[in-house]
Amino acid sequence: MSHTPAYTRLDVDERRRQLLELGARLFTERAYDELSMAQIAREAGISKALLYHYFPSKSAFFAATLREKAAELTARTEVEDDRPAAEQLLAGLDAFLAWVEDNQEGYAKLVRSAGIPEAAIVIDEVRDITAVRIVEGLGGGPRVRAAVRGWLWFLDGAILDWIEHGDVTRDEVRDTALGALAGAVAAAGRPI
Amino acid sequence: MSHTPAYTRLDVDERRRQLLELGARLFTERAYDELSMAQIAREAGISKALLYHYFPSKSAFFAATLREKAAELTARTEVEDDRPAAEQLLAGLDAFLAWVEDNQEGYAKLVRSAGIPEAAIVIDEVRDITAVRIVEGLGGGPRVRAAVRGWLWFLDGAILDWIEHGDVTRDEVRDTALGALAGAVAAAGRPI
Repeated sequence: MSHTPAYTRLDVDERRRQLLELGARLFTERAYDELSMAQIAREAGISKALLYHYFPSKSAFFAATLREKAAELTARTEVEDDRPAAEQLLAGLDAFLAWVEDNQEGYAKLVRSAGIPEAAIVIDEVRDITAVRIVEGLGGGPRVRAAVRGWLWFLDGAILDWIEHGDVTRDEVRDTALGALAGAVAAAGRPI
Repeated sequence: MSHTPAYTRLDVDERRRQLLELGARLFTERAYDELSMAQIAREAGISKALLYHYFPSKSAFFAATLREKAAELTARTEVEDDRPAAEQLLAGLDAFLAWVEDNQEGYAKLVRSAGIPEAAIVIDEVRDITAVRIVEGLGGGPRVRAAVRGWLWFLDGAILDWIEHGDVTRDEVRDTALGALAGAVAAAGRPI
């Protein structure tokens, strides 16, 4: 039996995972336009050709790092149990704000880069998944949907304010957000 | 007295105003990256050199068209009278939503292009001016500020949903938004 390492499927997945982790850090630290695939390859200690083997373009790489973070976030905030919708929502919101606190810079940058098409698509996807999940829990028609979608924007605005000023606590952000949601869906005819 | 038209200050202002109006239309209809100064000059029926005389770059021109719209919006939503803060807010919100209804496509595009630095700056300026105005009216500290800033994002999210789906009325958007604001500032300790 040879000791030469075999390049198994796992190696490829592990390399991809490491590249995505590096990408999340680099895209947080630097402006998108300032990063080149050559620089990313250098930081990763691999050839540019190998980097292109994993990701066909910088924008595809950027989109993949966003998707990885979004998947992590969606998994963290998914609450699947028998508790009432309002309690699940609260648990999901707490998990979300805890995740944001751990990823402050990256999150602020992502929300602020909504004009980059790849970022806009991922932000919209996350908001859509979350909106559907909440609207299903609450029940209700177009007015509740509009209230929930507005509220997901509220969250991002309140989070940017929180990160920027740092003079309110995470629990205060949560309580204010819950107040906004309760007020919005009550006005939409669906008190929680 | 000669009949040769004199190029007065008014002509310059009027030309500038016309260029901004054209810019608002062109930037709404086409993607920012697809428009060149040469095309804009052609559409305006002037030379590229003259266009550059008014605006030193495409991004400066874009920023100026946004600022013009923002000034129009801020003027439309300013309510200076002796009514209580809550009534002024309601009047301002009604005026704002009416303006959005008249400028739907441009507004949706502006909100979605928040990653273009010029757009981000103008959006932030408008939100800051509006937030200060509302927070001054309501009174309150950091929690009310965070609630109001989050709420201005709520508005943009709810408006995009409204424009996209078209299945809720302007008054429903207003009532849902007011519910969100009331819920948020009440949670922040400042019931309205």
